Parts: sequence; C-alpha cells; structure tokens
Amino acid sequence: MSFAPLQNDTFLRACLRQATDHTPMWLMRQAGRYLPEYCATRAKAGSFMGLATNVDYATEVTLQPLERYPLDAAILFSDILTVPDAMGLGLTFAAGEGPKFAKNVRDEAAVDALAVPDMAKLRYVFDAVTSIRKALNGRVPLIGFSGSPWTLACYMVEGGGSDDYRAVKTLMYSRPDLMHRILAINADAVAQYLNTQIDAGAQAVMVFDSWGGVLADGNFQAFSMAYTRRVLDQLKTEKDGQRIPSIVFTKGGGLWLNEMNTLPCDVLGVDWTVNLARARSLVGGDVGGPGKALQGNLDPNVLFASAAQIEAEATRVLDSFGIPHTDRSTTGPTHIFNLGHGISQYTPPDSVSALVAAVHSHSRRMRAQG
Amino acid sequence: MSFAPLQNDTFLRACLRQATDHTPMWLMRQAGRYLPEYCATRAKAGSFMGLATNVDYATEVTLQPLERYPLDAAILFSDILTVPDAMGLGLTFAAGEGPKFAKNVRDEAAVDALAVPDMAKLRYVFDAVTSIRKALNGRVPLIGFSGSPWTLACYMVEGGGSDDYRAVKTLMYSRPDLMHRILAINADAVAQYLNTQIDAGAQAVMVFDSWGGVLADGNFQAFSMAYTRRVLDQLKTEKDGQRIPSIVFTKGGGLWLNEMNTLPCDVLGVDWTVNLARARSLVGGDVGGPGKALQGNLDPNVLFASAAQIEAEATRVLDSFGIPHTDRSTTGPTHIFNLGHGISQYTPPDSVSALVAAVHSHSRRMRAQG
Repeated sequence: MSFAPLQNDTFLRACLRQATDHTPMWLMRQAGRYLPEYCATRAKAGSFMGLATNVDYATEVTLQPLERYPLDAAILFSDILTVPDAMGLGLTFAAGEGPKFAKNVRDEAAVDALAVPDMAKLRYVFDAVTSIRKALNGRVPLIGFSGSPWTLACYMVEGGGSDDYRAVKTLMYSRPDLMHRILAINADAVAQYLNTQIDAGAQAVMVFDSWGGVLADGNFQAFSMAYTRRVLDQLKTEKDGQRIPSIVFTKGGGLWLNEMNTLPCDVLGVDWTVNLARARSLVGGDVGGPGKALQGNLDPNVLFASAAQIEAEATRVLDSFGIPHTDRSTTGPTHIFNLGHGISQYTPPDSVSALVAAVHSHSRRMRAQG
Repeated sequence: MSFAPLQNDTFLRACLRQATDHTPMWLMRQAGRYLPEYCATRAKAGSFMGLATNVDYATEVTLQPLERYPLDAAILFSDILTVPDAMGLGLTFAAGEGPKFAKNVRDEAAVDALAVPDMAKLRYVFDAVTSIRKALNGRVPLIGFSGSPWTLACYMVEGGGSDDYRAVKTLMYSRPDLMHRILAINADAVAQYLNTQIDAGAQAVMVFDSWGGVLADGNFQAFSMAYTRRVLDQLKTEKDGQRIPSIVFTKGGGLWLNEMNTLPCDVLGVDWTVNLARARSLVGGDVGGPGKALQGNLDPNVLFASAAQIEAEATRVLDSFGIPHTDRSTTGPTHIFNLGHGISQYTPPDSVSALVAAVHSHSRRMRAQG
C-alpha cells in the first residue's frame, strides 16, 4: 500500500519529542455522539456495532470531527472490546446502555477456552484503518488503538461494565493464576491487533488502560503495567521507514508515573488529576536526553462552560506543562493537548471550536515568548 | 454528660501518633448490609432514613459489628447527606438505589436560599451519638463524621449520585462564584455539625471527601481542600480535657498527600492506590517530630478471597506501612488499619473475622520483631 504524504506531522513529531510550532491536539472519543452528523450516520447504521463493522461508516465518522475542527490527528473509530468479541464472547450494545458480553470468563473452564483470536475475524477493523488512511489523504496522521490487557479482562470477567469490579477483583485475589493466564492471552492478542493495524496504515498506536486506576498499588504493576509492557515489547516501532509512536494512557494512573516511565512507549497520557509540571519533571526528560512525551489533560466538563472560560482553562493546562522545547536539532519535553478522558456526549460542538482555537493560538504564543 | 472510662484507647492513641501494642482497625461502613443482623434491624425500621433517624435503631446497628468482631473503634451509624437534608433539600433513598434530593442547587436563586441549617433539625444525630456512647460503655471510642463541603456540594448540585459530575462541574467551571458560596455554607454547617457531635460524645471525627478525587489538579486544592481546611479550622480539638482527633479521607487523593499534609488534622485516610511506605515517607513524620497518622488502605474486594488470601493481603498492607514507632515516651509514625473504601454489601461476614484476626496478630508480631 502507498498513501499520500503527510501534510501535518505536528502530532507525530510531538509524540517523538521533536519540536513543533504549536501544541498538537486531538480529543479522546472525538468522533462521537456530541456531533449531530455522527448521530445521523449511527442512525443509518442501525447500531453501534453496525457502525463499527461497516468500513464506509467507520471512515465517515472518523473524518467528521476533522471536517469541523483543525485537529492534528485522527483516531480510528472502533471500540476497545472488538478483541474479546473476536475471542467469541459475543459483544452487544443495548440502546442507551454500555457494552454486554453474552459469555463471561470467571472460571478455569472459561479460561481454558480462551485463545488469541484469528486476526481475520477483525478484518473489518484493519479494512477501516486502510480506508480511513486513504480518505485522510495525508491531512493528519491516523492513530490506531486497543484496550489494555487488564481493561479488556475487566469487561471479560464482569461480562460488561462495573461500578465495583467485584467479579474481576475476586478472580484476581482468589485465583491470580487464572488472571495471569487471561492477561497473557490478552497481551498477545492486543500486540497482534495493533501490529496488524500498523500494517493496515495506522501511524501511531494507543493503549487505553481505562481501568488500571482501580487497582491497588502493587497489583497495578503486576496485573496491568506488566501486561501493557508485554504488548509494547511485541510492537512494531517502524513501518516503511517511519517510526510508529506508541501511547499508553492509564486513567487514574498518576501515582505510578515514575514506574510507567520505564515502559517502552513514546507517550504517556494522563488525566486531569495530574499536575503537568510535576509530570514533566518526573517523566518529560531533558533536552537531548531520554523521556516521554505527555498527553492530556483537560477535564471534559470544562467544555460545558463559556468560550472565555474554556480558553482560560485550556491556557491553564498549557501553562502548567510550560513551554515545550523548541530546538529542532534535538529532542526534548513535548506536550500533546487532549482531554483527560473521552468527550461527553452532551458537549456543545461549539465548545470544541473554542478549545481548538485556544490551544493552537496560546501554544504558538508561548513558543514566541519562550 | 459523663461516660464510662475508655477500656481500649488503641485507636485514639494511633490517631495522635502514640505507640500502641497492635495496629488498631475499624472498617468504613462496618455497620452495614453485609451483616444479616443489620438487614433485620433495617427491615424493622422500614427505610434507611427510618433507621438513621431512630436513636434506638441507630444505636443497635452501630454496635452490631462490635458484637461480632474485636474492632478498635465504633463509628456513628448515619449518612453523609443529613446536613443538606437539614438545609431543606429533601433526602430520600429509593429501595435499591442511591440517595435522591427533592430539590437541587444549580442556580443563583437556589444558592441564595441556602444557609447553615439550625442544628436542632439534626438532633436525631446528636441524640444517637450520646446513646451510642452510653451503650458502648467505654469498650472502644466512638467516631463522629460528616461529608466534606465539596462532597456534599456534589450531591446537592447533582440532586443525587452521578457518574460524570457534569452538573456540579458545569457550575464550578461556569459560575465559580456560586460554587464558592455553596462551599462556604457547607463548610460552616459541617463544622457546627461535627462540633455538636463532639459535644454529644464523639471522641474523634472524620471528614469523608468521597468525591474530592474527581477534581482536576488545582481545583481539588481550591474547591475541596480549602473548604476542608475551613471546617478543620473551626473544630474543637479538646473536650473535657481529652484531645479529639480529626481524620480527613479523600478517595482518589493520593496525588495530593503532600498538600494535604498541611491540613490541621491528625490523620489522613488513603485508598488502595496509595503505597503506604511512600505515604509514610511523605506525611508520616519522624519520631518526636510532627506528622500525620495514616489510615487505610485494603481494597474491600480482598474480602471476597479465602481466609488465607485475606491474611496475606492484610499482611502486605501492614508490611507496606512498616513497623510503627514503639516508644511510648514520644510520638511518631502510626497506622490505623482500614479499607480504602466502604465495605461491600456482598462481603461474607466470616471474611471480616479473618481480617481482624490477621491485622491484630501480624501487627503484634511486627512490633515484637522491630
């Protein structure tokens, strides 16, 4: 496959800790229900999985936010639960409710039945990646993604969402051997899944460890981070001579940044509880030295305030990271602006316009003053 | 009022960073639905508020866990939402659901109507404190409690529980002036509420900042911690010549321990994401020097594992804090064992027996080896 040359490499440069003229930004769940055009496409598709499994629809909704806003990256429209679905657990989304699996994984027999799925079952995802990459035509890079092994395990054991993680933690505390077996399979599946997305055209990949933050200290390291590492250790880092950066985002993982700094990834995503100045000093690295780029971390609820207040809060986040390094001859601390969690379905679309304008203009101003 | 002399002062001593022979323990929500005798009393009372507002029932359920387990403290049976209820918001608990307010506080008119409630409306709470203290007859100390100003505000603005805090954060980001007015009223109400509990017989008080951890860095300090401080600044610290220790617990507050160390309280509670060795080094203080006692932090889901696994996890928590100081002539780092959150209603009661035995015996063993 050959794709059109990239016109805006700001996001990829920032991932690799290279200097940029402005702070690149995209939004987790940027193709979503807050956009009326997304809702229209979803209505045509009939269901969430109908949308996610149809290459044309998935391409259409992935590009919708880029038509409205000058975002610096696109992210594959899909769901983190496609991998356990391909393992045969039977994923459905009831209207207005979260995901549900027909089967859950709570005993030895269910674990015995688990295996890394045939990637052919996920062909609709890889086809969507290629289709989106073509449709983007080099405007901005395309991010592929997966849930983390632990986060997938949460849904697989609970059989859906949870507010107390009782089932998955009961298994973890009472049968750690079974939990490690599930996580090893998940890690190998996620690695294959992301590598196949890279082959299909993804220019960066992100691991969403949405539920790592519910683990106790010690267990996070053993049951989440260790398997994220197992994924990263298997990932392609180059494709057709281009570096493929990897991003790890653990919601609620701010306490473990020091340890996550040892992961073989390029970017660490952080939520709004994290002080970016402190995160930069912990993991951002020095000019010319090793370090991680940081991604985040505006509270999505800021987008319910006025345009002036959104601008003030965006400025606060940018200033909290401080001036990124500006020397194009070397690497150094960089920041990718994002929310600290997915955008709310109730967000007024105009709020996003205000946010993107504020981030781009203030981040240019910071560099000019630096 | 005069009460029987205290027979087990281990908990109060540990709160004040004084050496003890074992690590004292109690459990958040220890009087609760996991106990069949609690469910029986609740059935007699007809409803949760019927239980909480009846002095005899509140006394009965507060003492139930102490009949079963050799816990080192009792905690008033009540709800954090009694204060906004007394402000006239109309608290109810529908069967099987969370709390609901008849009115919510989302605009200037609703804030104008708010005031510190007449403590006479909360007399059922203070009567329960005195009744429980008498019924305890000096066995263990009685802890009084309140929600934090921010946590109360979450429920007052949302009108109940929430999974995204959209309403309260919309108000905070768009009308910070109104949010500060609500929080100031809440802080003064909470201070009066806790002081009246102390007058009625509470021997320690705890502020539950259950939702402080949902705030962004910067906003936690301004909208939660500042008002917890305003409460603490007004609290009585002595009653009848006895020190009344105060405990602050922010769920998800581990990132802000350094800043919380400046609060004028005796104990900081932490959830299971916090490494107790690190917390001790940050805030535990030296022998003879200032510092905070630490309370926590077992994941309540450990209680769904076997007795042997519960013992191993409890040991891990105790060892993570390390050997508390043992010199009775001075103060130093101390630990109060607890969960990192309220006990689950599904917990097998025998699991708590195993936990209490493990904490008491291992913590004695640690001191012997120290």
